[in-house]
This record gives sequence, structure tokens and C-alpha cells, in this order.
Amino acid sequence: MDYKRILNEIYEEAKVYKGQGQVASYIPELALVDPLKYGIHLSTIEGEEYSLGDSRERFSIQSISKVLSLAQVLPLLGETLWERVDVEPSGNPFNSIVQLEYENGIPRNPFLNAGALVLADILISRFDDPMESFLSFVRKIAGNDTIEYDKKVAASEIATGFLNASLINMMKSYGNILNEVDKVLNFYCHQCSIAMSCEDLAYAFMAFADEGCLFRSDDRILKKSQVKRINALMQTCGFYDEAGEFSYRVGLPGKSGVGGGIVAVHPKCYSIAVWSPKLNPKGNSVLGMKTLELLTTKTGTSIF
Amino acid sequence: MDYKRILNEIYEEAKVYKGQGQVASYIPELALVDPLKYGIHLSTIEGEEYSLGDSRERFSIQSISKVLSLAQVLPLLGETLWERVDVEPSGNPFNSIVQLEYENGIPRNPFLNAGALVLADILISRFDDPMESFLSFVRKIAGNDTIEYDKKVAASEIATGFLNASLINMMKSYGNILNEVDKVLNFYCHQCSIAMSCEDLAYAFMAFADEGCLFRSDDRILKKSQVKRINALMQTCGFYDEAGEFSYRVGLPGKSGVGGGIVAVHPKCYSIAVWSPKLNPKGNSVLGMKTLELLTTKTGTSIF
Amino acid sequence: MDYKRILNEIYEEAKVYKGQGQVASYIPELALVDPLKYGIHLSTIEGEEYSLGDSRERFSIQSISKVLSLAQVLPLLGETLWERVDVEPSGNPFNSIVQLEYENGIPRNPFLNAGALVLADILISRFDDPMESFLSFVRKIAGNDTIEYDKKVAASEIATGFLNASLINMMKSYGNILNEVDKVLNFYCHQCSIAMSCEDLAYAFMAFADEGCLFRSDDRILKKSQVKRINALMQTCGFYDEAGEFSYRVGLPGKSGVGGGIVAVHPKCYSIAVWSPKLNPKGNSVLGMKTLELLTTKTGTSIF
Amino acid sequence: MDYKRILNEIYEEAKVYKGQGQVASYIPELALVDPLKYGIHLSTIEGEEYSLGDSRERFSIQSISKVLSLAQVLPLLGETLWERVDVEPSGNPFNSIVQLEYENGIPRNPFLNAGALVLADILISRFDDPMESFLSFVRKIAGNDTIEYDKKVAASEIATGFLNASLINMMKSYGNILNEVDKVLNFYCHQCSIAMSCEDLAYAFMAFADEGCLFRSDDRILKKSQVKRINALMQTCGFYDEAGEFSYRVGLPGKSGVGGGIVAVHPKCYSIAVWSPKLNPKGNSVLGMKTLELLTTKTGTSIF
Repeated sequence: MDYKRILNEIYEEAKVYKGQGQVASYIPELALVDPLKYGIHLSTIEGEEYSLGDSRERFSIQSISKVLSLAQVLPLLGETLWERVDVEPSGNPFNSIVQLEYENGIPRNPFLNAGALVLADILISRFDDPMESFLSFVRKIAGNDTIEYDKKVAASEIATGFLNASLINMMKSYGNILNEVDKVLNFYCHQCSIAMSCEDLAYAFMAFADEGCLFRSDDRILKKSQVKRINALMQTCGFYDEAGEFSYRVGLPGKSGVGGGIVAVHPKCYSIAVWSPKLNPKGNSVLGMKTLELLTTKTGTSIF
Repeated sequence: MDYKRILNEIYEEAKVYKGQGQVASYIPELALVDPLKYGIHLSTIEGEEYSLGDSRERFSIQSISKVLSLAQVLPLLGETLWERVDVEPSGNPFNSIVQLEYENGIPRNPFLNAGALVLADILISRFDDPMESFLSFVRKIAGNDTIEYDKKVAASEIATGFLNASLINMMKSYGNILNEVDKVLNFYCHQCSIAMSCEDLAYAFMAFADEGCLFRSDDRILKKSQVKRINALMQTCGFYDEAGEFSYRVGLPGKSGVGGGIVAVHPKCYSIAVWSPKLNPKGNSVLGMKTLELLTTKTGTSIF
Repeated sequence: MDYKRILNEIYEEAKVYKGQGQVASYIPELALVDPLKYGIHLSTIEGEEYSLGDSRERFSIQSISKVLSLAQVLPLLGETLWERVDVEPSGNPFNSIVQLEYENGIPRNPFLNAGALVLADILISRFDDPMESFLSFVRKIAGNDTIEYDKKVAASEIATGFLNASLINMMKSYGNILNEVDKVLNFYCHQCSIAMSCEDLAYAFMAFADEGCLFRSDDRILKKSQVKRINALMQTCGFYDEAGEFSYRVGLPGKSGVGGGIVAVHPKCYSIAVWSPKLNPKGNSVLGMKTLELLTTKTGTSIF
Repeated sequence: MDYKRILNEIYEEAKVYKGQGQVASYIPELALVDPLKYGIHLSTIEGEEYSLGDSRERFSIQSISKVLSLAQVLPLLGETLWERVDVEPSGNPFNSIVQLEYENGIPRNPFLNAGALVLADILISRFDDPMESFLSFVRKIAGNDTIEYDKKVAASEIATGFLNASLINMMKSYGNILNEVDKVLNFYCHQCSIAMSCEDLAYAFMAFADEGCLFRSDDRILKKSQVKRINALMQTCGFYDEAGEFSYRVGLPGKSGVGGGIVAVHPKCYSIAVWSPKLNPKGNSVLGMKTLELLTTKTGTSIF
């Protein structure tokens, strides 16, 4: 597959849509980013690398961190994890509390804010220094020791995250949060604040493309069945209230964040990260969606 | 791939679970079926056929009909269809009315009862004799002119389908049903009552495995993009409130029915239908789920 | 109390508001009424009568019929009635189906459409000719043998009442409707279509003002405890989603209908009916609300 | 009216029910109270006083404080208060968050926890020392300078009040809480922790029985129209999900608390407080309800 030519084509074609969408503003610090940034990085399991535009500039990964958090938690707890969070799509906006109350404090899936808060709670129970432990995990899976939390973004989210505080207190009232809510919220907001580049993310998600093996390594950090679970969850729940549309238009398991990043994997083939900060009304990057749609169309690599 | 050996293995292994589950009883006529029936049929795009057990016995396809209905409607309306039904997973049981009221009478997806009722309404508006027209379509896609409605099952469902009546009247109040509700309900219940065998279903779903071409033919009845849409919908919405679990355990687009049938496709590879009437608490065939899980595990053909 | 002078004052003052509000249009036949009609009738238990404006002209009583239906059903079933319908305010619009599904088909109170449909179902089970039986009851309680169903209004409501059809089918699916849904809907729409004047209604509701005795009679048709129940229900549930506002502004048990009628009682003192077809956004007569507010303010007869 | 004889009769009759119900345990400190306590105090506007049992022992007033809070806030803000909290009954349990989300952070009424949190937020915005200011108001309305917060109960509620934290953060996300959530929660829990006796409460609520005048005084702290509003709200919203049942059985405006207290008023006639800690499943004192039911039955003073 001539990825180089195809990606260059896409990069030109997608630019047309640069005027569309809005940068996320509900976390004030995120609103400061340059809205015209646009980067792509694709890694294949054969070891090829393709980089375009702002692919080495770091941005706030936001909800993409939920997949990394799940990848750290799942091997620790195994199938018992699913007693505290379900695996089904939600059909409601990503921070809706109605379903949480209806289902007794059990989030529908780990990619809802409520679900990721449960994952954060689990990591706090497991590690003396969960902040350090999670960062080490992310650095390891991405193969980059310079990745850091963005303290400003974390502080901005903590200061304005009232819906998350509402969600976690609801779960606490049902006994599904074991640690102090402020501690969990603080850790969760730091997870979301991690800054990574498209390149970092494509490397990290190679673990999900390559059956659980670390990028450029034979070290396995996830069982095949765990990778299958994570990919299935990305397919059905990775795009807020647009999972169905993404499944159709792109046809790959993936995860988006309100920082404008989208990562997707073609199992046993490639991982790809795209970044462009302007979002559609459902919170997904306009150029990111377009780029991936063009990619699977031009390469015929939709899983459907 | 030695499908013959693998399917034989699965058939023996799966039998262990024959004691589990309950035959659907909310439609009285369905409760009369022999609970120990078990059939499998797999067709490959290369033309191989594998049949086991009660694979040629007909059963009530029930919700599987929703995929066939969508396959008939989508080419007629094209993308304008999505103004009347959405494409997102629901996160609620398949006949919940809450979401319908909340979203002004637009069903979340065409595989909810509400969504399929909208499809039925569309077919009634299009054809002078929608019953005949739909049956012709099913016979053509399955390559079998003897397929019929089961009038007893249809009558049984009409007589007890109060939730469907509640759903359709709600949509009618929002203007999303154009024909008389009784006419639409009657047609919808007939669609569900169609009796087909595993062999019939595997043949019919070959259109979704083989990019829109009729089984053993070069006749294309669906565009590639339409097949992609249907497969993506089956992946995210095909299993009531168990779509996430099915995506993980099986990892193929598919559709189940409360008659105990499940059909799944591996795009560009094969289609498979399984039938066993005893259902798990979420309404999916116990042996059907197990059979498909073993198949993708043993063959490594999960799309994840 | 000089009701004559006070009512004359009110009649002049309230006219200022004649421009406000909209005639109900969701039942087409109701939209044909003259929007400027305005009538008042007040009856005291001492036998005084005060009549102003269009007080002897008949209009569609609509939801006011729910109180009459309850008055017929309650002595028949006694306290067992409350197994099929609850007595609590709803906090949702009068025809919401969400709460009905959440509470397994038991309506929150008999003055919701769902609750009144259960009452209609009960009357059908009890009487060979429920239409005749209910009409006789209404004629008797109002002391007027010429009261009739308005067939045109009933037909108009049956033809457009899809939300009611949705509600009743939902209850039927939970087993809380025993007769055929079409039969119950037909009877319910006829109940709502009954045409009565302010005078008729004030006479009829004297039974609730006068501890269960028929107007100008010692015949008791309700026990004191049953009257207390009906009045308490009118106080907490009589005004759709405006029961709290009405309790404050008027401070009397009462019931409104979308035909523009409102009836209220001051226990052991008087009953009053007002009619003016233009409704506020919550479905209650603008002039009716104003008239009653002025009455209790000027006479100091709010129960609070 | 021979209240003395009637209350003595009631006190004997009600004892039969002492075995029923459960002391509230969700606030641990409340579970420590003697479950067999039973006190009554009735004050008439003519100045008569009737006291029985443990009527001078203090207990945690809990939700009864919401009425006192409203009585302090309403004269400060007047009708603009209703922009931040509605006046309609809720039809959901007292701490449900679903309705709050559905209605954009505006609580249905001031006697829901969410509503009372808004009142607390308003008092914090108005006073430099809201804790002191509220206590002064309560001491003044009850005519007793020794009334105090119970710090242990407040601390116990703060430590376990996750549902309240969920509610207030939800409202904060909609902009309906202006101060820091922890500060508001702390103040709210202190309000609920105030310890008063039946005598104190009957004196305090005399302001609602006597058109806004302080007990044994001509000082008016509320306008007549404000008293009418508060009484109407107690009638329709004062008893969690049992307002309809209380309206029928007792027929007086009133308010209950999970500490086992119930206060009710007969406008222009009397106020009465009852205390007995064991609650029915809906959170209202079993003996308290029984006492008031017997009182209005024996005296014929139901407002219906």
C-alpha cells in the first residue's frame, strides 16, 4: 500500500474543511490552542512510519487517555473489572448522569467520564503514587520518557469540572468509588491533561494494533483477548454519541478527545493518530474524522 | 481454513450448553418450538458450504428481518432515510419508549423495534402491495422462492404486541409514521414472522459479506457504501443490549432474533447462520452466541 | 359575603386579560369555539346562585370529566382502586409516558390521561353499557337530564389521539388495562367530549363542596372520606404541571380542562365554574385562573 | 374545641403503632436516637398550649429546616426567587437528580434537597456570616435563644452526603449555584442539624398559621401572600413522595423531616408539631402521620 502518496492526497483534500468546527471551550485552557493545527502520524506493524504536518507537536489527549487507563487497569484486575463498569454503548451524551442513577452507579462503559473515573479510582487503590505510576505506563507504551502532565490544563479542568464532580459523587453514593472523590477527580483530570503528539499516540496504540506487543518490541503488555476487548470497546463506544457514524464512515476501532486528537487502529495492520483542534457539534475533530474516512476509503481498509 | 473440522468441533463443544436459557414466550406461538433444535450453516464467498444439525429447518427469523427490511429500504431512499431514523446505539432495551419520547419520535437506529416500524411505514408508502413486495425481496436475496410468512406467528404477535403499539403511536404523534398504525403494525409483524432456515439466512446475508452482490450471482443489489453502513449498524446495534459483549466475544457484524437465530458476516469472507431457540436473559440465543464465539476464536477471524 | 358585587367586580377586572392565551388546537374540533366566551357560575351550600356572562352555554368539559369519572368509580371499588392508580402528583406533563414505563404501568394519579384511561377501563368492566351508565351518572350529579356527549368532538379526539393510544398500549403491556384498547379509548374520548355549562358544572361539583350530597338534595353519593380524597387529589394534581402555582394563586381544590373550563370548590362553602377558551402555555384557561385568583383574594377564602 | 381531651385520646390510640417503622440510618448520627420517643405540642392562635410526652426534648429537625430557610429567603428576594427554584411538586424521590438534569439545573421546588441547596446558596451570598444569621432567624421565629446547631449531626451528614454533593455540582454546572459547593454543602448540613423541640417548632410555625406574625407578637415577618405561598408549597410538596397521601389523610399544609418530626398548620387556627423517630418506607414518621390523621379526623379540621 502506498501510504505516503495516499496520506499526501488526504492531507491536501482535508484542508478544505479547515474552516469548519469550533475549538473546545468548556475547559478554558484548551481554548488557547491554535485552531489551524493539523498533524497525522501512521505506523504500520511492519515498521513503516508516515508523518505529516504538526505530527510532532504535543496537544492535550483528553479522553484518549481513557484507553490508556483501561490498558493499565485491565491486566491488573482481569475480568473482575466488569463488576464495576459495563461494556455496552450508552446512547446518551458522554457525561449524562441519568443512566448512572438508573443503573445504580455502574457506568455503561469505561469510555464515559463516569467509567474512566472508576478506572482512576482503581489505580489509586492499587498504587502508592498513582500519578507517577500512570505516567510511567504511558511513557512505556508510547516509548517516550519525556511525556508529561500539563498542570495548567489539569488545573483548568479541576476548577470547572462540576459535571464530573456530580457523576463521581453519585457513584460514591452507590459505593462504586472507594477513595476520596477529590483525590480521584484530581487524578482523572491529570490523566486527561497529558500532552502527546500524533507520533506518540500512534506508537502507543500500536499495542492495540499488534496484539498487545509494545511498539518495536516483543514485550507483551496485554493478552490477545484483552486487546480484542479494548478494540471492541473502541468500536462501539469510542466516539461519544457518534460511535455509529464513525463505525460507518471510518470503520476502525478508535478513540477521540476534545483536544482534537483521534487515534484509530487497523488490527494486525496499522495505527494512526490525527490532530486538529476544531470539533464538530458532537465533540469530535472535524479534520480528524475526515482524514480517517478518506484513509479507509482510499485504502479499502474499513473492517466492514 | 478447515471450516469442516472446526465446525464439527464447535458443534460438539457447544452442545454442553444445551441446558441453558429459555425459549421466548412473550409471543405465545414462539413458545411451541422444540427447545433443543440446533443448526449451523456457513457459506464462503469462494462458494464453499458447510451445514450441521437442523440447518435446513425453518424457524421464525423475527428481528433478523430488520436487516432485510433495511436492505430493501436503503437503496430506495438513500441517505434521506437517516432523517427518519438515526444510526447510533441505544443503551436501552430494544423496545424502550423513553428515548423515543426524549428524541421527538426519531428512533436511535433501524434495529430497534421503533426503527423497524419506520422502515415498514416507508415500504407501505412505496408499494401497492408491501407484503408481496417484501416477500419477493427476501426470496430473491435468499435465492429461495418457497419462503413464506408464518400467519400463525404473525397473528400471535399482533394479538400481544402492546409495546409495539405504544411505540408506533408515540411516533405517529410526532409525525414520524405516515400510514395507519394498524396497517404498519400488521406488516411489521408479518415481516418478523417470516420462516427461514440457517441455509436461507446464510445465503441471504452473503449480500453483506460480498459487497452487495447476490449469492452466486454478479447482480449487485446494494452499493458498497450501503453494505458498509449495514454492517457497521449490525456491529454497533445488532444485539439489543448486548452489542458490546457480542462485539468482544464474537467480533463480527451480526443480528439476532428472539426465534433463536443469529446471522453474522465476515466481510469479504463468509456469512454464517446459527439457530437454537433457548435465549439468554438479554434475548440472544445461548448456543448461537457460543457457536460464533468459538468460530472466531478457533479461526482467528474476529475483526478486532 | 356579597358574592354578587365581588363577582361583578371580578368580571370587569378579568376582561383586561381577554387578549391573552390560545385556544386549544390539538383536538381540531375544539379550535372552532369562539375564543372570547366568558362565563361564571357560583353556587353556595346555602342555596344561593350567581351567574355571569356565558354561564349557561355548554362547552367541552375535557379533563374535568376525570373528576366525575373518579366520583363514579371510587364508590364502586373503594380503596382497592389505588392498586391500579396512585394518588401522588406527577411532576411531568399530563401525558408523559416516561413515568408510566418507569413505574410499571401504574399511573401516578387519576387526573393524568393514563389514570383516567384506567378509570374508563374499570367502568367498561363494570357496566354493560358504560357510555349510557356514565352519562346517567353525570346527568344525576349535575341535576340535568339534557347533558349529552358531543360526537364530533369525540370523533376528532379519537382520530388524533396518538399519545393516548401510546399510553394505553403501554399500560396494556403491563396488564393494567383489562379491556380492548380501542374500546377504552373510544369511551374515554366520549367522556372528555361531554358538553356542560358553568351552571351544570357548579351544580355537579357541589357534591364535593357539600360532603358528598347531591345538589339540592340529601342523597349522599359519596362518603365524606371519599370526598376528602377527591378534593385532596384536585388540590395536588388538578392542574397538569401547574398544580403548585394554582394552589398558591387560588388555594382551592379544582380541576381544569383544555376546553377552557375550570371548576373549584371551597369545602362546606361553595362550588364555582368558570369558562373561557384561551389557555396559558400549561393548558389552563387564562381568564379562569384570573377569575378564581381574584375571587379567593377578594373573599379571603383561600384554604391557605 | 376540647384539644386537651382529644390529644390525650390520640396519644393513647397512636401508641399502638410504636412498633412500626425504622429510625433513619443513612446519617449515622441520627441512628443513635431512642426510637420510642413520642412528643406532641399544639399552639392555637388564641394562645392556648397543649403539650404531651417528649414535647420539650430536642431532636434533629432535618428537612423541616427547609421551611425556615424559605421563610428567611422569600422576604429578601421576593418573587425573583422563583427564577432559581420552581414551585411544582416533583413526582420523584426527594434527592433524584434526573429531573434536575432534565430541567437545566432548576429544582422543582424549595423542599427538595436541590431546592434547599439553592436557598442556602442565596443566604451565603447575602450574609457575611450566614450560619449566624440563619440561627438568629430560627431563634427569633421560635422565640428561643438557646436553639443551636448539632455539630455532630452536621459532621455526620457532611461525611456521607454524596447524593447532595452530586446534586449541587450538577446545579453548579448549570450556573445555578454561585458560591463554592463545599461552603454551601457545609451550611446546608448545619441547617438540617438544628435541634429543636416540638414546642419550639409549634411556636416557629405559628408564623405560617397566623398570617406572618411572630408567635405572641404583632411583629410581621412575612407578608400574607408569602405565607400563602409557603403553605401552598407545604401542601403540595412537603412530604417527599407522599404529599398526595398526606394531603388526603391529614389535609393540612405541613413538613416532615427524617429526624422523625412533622409540623403542620391549620391556617388562622393552630400549629402542631409531633416527634417520633421511627419512619415509614417513604421517610415520614409513622406516629407523626397517625397523630395528625387522628387530629384532623376527630376535630374535623382538614382543609378538605
